[in-house]
Amino acid sequence: MASMASLFTKTPKPTNSLSKATQTQFLPSFHVSLPSKKPRFGNQNRLQVKSELISPDGGKLVQLVVEEDLRREKKRESFELPRIKLSTIDLQWVHILSEGWASPLSGFMRENEFLQTLHFNSLRLHDGSFVNMSVPIVLAIDDVARNRIGDSNRVALFDPNGVEPVAIINDIQVYRHNKEERVARTWGTTAPGLPYVEETIANAGDWLIGGDLEVLEPIKYNDGLDRFRLSPAKLREEFLKRDADAVFAFQLRNPVHNGHALLMTDTRRRLLDMGYKNPILLLNPLGGFTKADDVPLHWRMKQHEKVLEDGVLDPETTVVSIFPSPMHYAGPTEVQWHAKARINAGANFYIVGRDPAGMGHPVEKRDLYDADHGKRVLGMAPGLERLNILPFKVAAYDTTQGKMAFFDPSRPQDFVFISGTKMRTLAKNKENPPDGFMCPGGWKVLVDYYDSLVSSENGKIPQPAAVAV
Amino acid sequence: MASMASLFTKTPKPTNSLSKATQTQFLPSFHVSLPSKKPRFGNQNRLQVKSELISPDGGKLVQLVVEEDLRREKKRESFELPRIKLSTIDLQWVHILSEGWASPLSGFMRENEFLQTLHFNSLRLHDGSFVNMSVPIVLAIDDVARNRIGDSNRVALFDPNGVEPVAIINDIQVYRHNKEERVARTWGTTAPGLPYVEETIANAGDWLIGGDLEVLEPIKYNDGLDRFRLSPAKLREEFLKRDADAVFAFQLRNPVHNGHALLMTDTRRRLLDMGYKNPILLLNPLGGFTKADDVPLHWRMKQHEKVLEDGVLDPETTVVSIFPSPMHYAGPTEVQWHAKARINAGANFYIVGRDPAGMGHPVEKRDLYDADHGKRVLGMAPGLERLNILPFKVAAYDTTQGKMAFFDPSRPQDFVFISGTKMRTLAKNKENPPDGFMCPGGWKVLVDYYDSLVSSENGKIPQPAAVAV
Repeated sequence: MASMASLFTKTPKPTNSLSKATQTQFLPSFHVSLPSKKPRFGNQNRLQVKSELISPDGGKLVQLVVEEDLRREKKRESFELPRIKLSTIDLQWVHILSEGWASPLSGFMRENEFLQTLHFNSLRLHDGSFVNMSVPIVLAIDDVARNRIGDSNRVALFDPNGVEPVAIINDIQVYRHNKEERVARTWGTTAPGLPYVEETIANAGDWLIGGDLEVLEPIKYNDGLDRFRLSPAKLREEFLKRDADAVFAFQLRNPVHNGHALLMTDTRRRLLDMGYKNPILLLNPLGGFTKADDVPLHWRMKQHEKVLEDGVLDPETTVVSIFPSPMHYAGPTEVQWHAKARINAGANFYIVGRDPAGMGHPVEKRDLYDADHGKRVLGMAPGLERLNILPFKVAAYDTTQGKMAFFDPSRPQDFVFISGTKMRTLAKNKENPPDGFMCPGGWKVLVDYYDSLVSSENGKIPQPAAVAV
Repeated sequence: MASMASLFTKTPKPTNSLSKATQTQFLPSFHVSLPSKKPRFGNQNRLQVKSELISPDGGKLVQLVVEEDLRREKKRESFELPRIKLSTIDLQWVHILSEGWASPLSGFMRENEFLQTLHFNSLRLHDGSFVNMSVPIVLAIDDVARNRIGDSNRVALFDPNGVEPVAIINDIQVYRHNKEERVARTWGTTAPGLPYVEETIANAGDWLIGGDLEVLEPIKYNDGLDRFRLSPAKLREEFLKRDADAVFAFQLRNPVHNGHALLMTDTRRRLLDMGYKNPILLLNPLGGFTKADDVPLHWRMKQHEKVLEDGVLDPETTVVSIFPSPMHYAGPTEVQWHAKARINAGANFYIVGRDPAGMGHPVEKRDLYDADHGKRVLGMAPGLERLNILPFKVAAYDTTQGKMAFFDPSRPQDFVFISGTKMRTLAKNKENPPDGFMCPGGWKVLVDYYDSLVSSENGKIPQPAAVAV
């Protein structure tokens, strides 16, 4: 993975020029706030540029990691408090909260925040304005833990091994965890088999605990990928360093194929056409919990590395970084979270495709969500007015050009759709996709991944797990 | 029912003074907009007062009934359009829409409105502001109807007998009716047995049709109660005529007992304390679909009449009028609709109790909603900032005083809670409730109702059904 450092250095421009790019739909949402294009002078440069990044929700990026000089004392305190042992996914949420991806949330939700999220997908601030918040970020505890807490106003959160303290929650509120209502309002179904529900809600406790977090150390995973887990603060620094005047975020949880690349490259071209001088792509693969048949994070990161090495994307204008959120697969509800978190990371443009965060219905033979609803809901969502939503038409393999191109409905016969299932089947059978579907280096990573599954006795997919240090 | 005209004339003040009223919780929401108390002069009076009623959502009260001189022509047109036969409940929604209770909605929802309602419980206006809209007001059609519509841009809505045209929908949009998602997001459960779902969604068509309504005639029911069905426009006229400087709405779908009366009287007292000179109560019983074990509308209206005759409420400061909406029993989601509709009717204060619009879980042995969530959600809901929410503590029968009083948690042993179930059981058995629970005239109506049920062969509850004239 050493060569992933190259993600941040210049490599040759992509050689496959993408001429068929005019069909991308650009529908900036209601309030397109274009940054001012003032000239910059001397050492005011940094300050000038800084003012051009979109401000975080609530105006200030929340950062919950305790200052270094206080850590020893806070850690000592934490051993004296009632304890809650976190699950792996709970810890991913601590990570998310600690770095301010969910700004202005200052910890796991109390009940008023939970209710606003379920009913309005947004939180009202003191000044009456709204920020978007569509998925509950909550911590479930059982009766035993609740009794252990008793009258305490603070609790300590311990790592999944129950050995090391990770955080303290202050000014706690414990309230009922109505799982049925939470699931129905978040997913729009209560059908059994929703991956996140099965993994983390179905067997969770009947109480939720909210409050203000103090996180004792930056969350690390020690899996070789921590240097790609840039916090929103670090990402903002990086965008400023690169003199970005627009940041466009691309959320993904799958291997990058040339259809994705086409889209990202085309978006940059359109932003340049709009007058931006230096649009930077935030390629921000999701790093938390994913369902069993998704490609695991470390294989995806290997694949992304190859895509950049092969010159499909330009490292000079691309920042690859891991978004540490767990995946809900909650379609139109979740895509808002994916977009909102990227505002906090400094992105003012967000690319949204067909059926974002969607999956098949767990019981019925259909997609769980209407493929168009994600982008429509995103375009109307309270609190996302400042974000420019960039919907795109679907890309498919154009047999007349021998490459991925935006689908042209006037000649459907020329296009082949290569679904995730088809891609996986090809890779499993060590067959090659059509030339131009994915760069060869990236494809080899996929083949190697499925090879490793076959040779592994244990079919279980490893999930990223943070470790206390 | 002739004596119900007395609702609008002065009768003696209530004789039972209500001293135990100080425990009512008043928590005005964020933006209490008190009307200005400017002096009024001469014939500017009307205009001045008019400016003091809360403005309808969207600024203008929507009224969709076709002008009289156009009705003949529109009716002729409607016979030439593809037809949709309305259900009784569909027609109740046409009534609601026609009078602007759902302002600024101008007809059954198109998909963007439906999605905003499901996800955000609110609609964004062109100026970027929000109005509340928490329950989908949609019209379902089946495949046959969809095929019949074909490419037509307009359809005619016919009465439940399929004989008379009721309305035209213009500029229609037909989109998928995902019932599971609609139910899950509206009720927070998909459990079988939700009354509105069983009645009107479960067997409905797989498509929804939205568009702008033209309603051919005012909707009438010819059930002797039409004169109590005041539209928002008529209610506003009435409040202006009475020189109201505050209007407080009380939604109910049950017989009025003295606990309710205490609450309403106490609210008026508190508004007077706040400096209002003439607060008017809008006692606004729900008139549309209700579940089988609720007391039917015409019995409730008889009962309300007795309550006013007996002087429990003051007719001079009370307007009794029917709210024609069907009941969803969707708790915190629906209470927003109940409140929002009353803004359009001119109310700037809304009284909310324990578990509004709630019911028992249809499958599990518990309440479907947390009893506190309704008022909390209402207090945080987008688009309801202008409405002053008045939560109240629960009233119960105080055995030490021999009357209904606000529950005093310091002496719980003194209070008897008379649940709806208990009240029904007593009335069915022709037993009397404790003295002071309900005025004797009102109680007799209830006993008569249950008597009529027993003597009736057919246990089915009649629902109010509009008729085309």
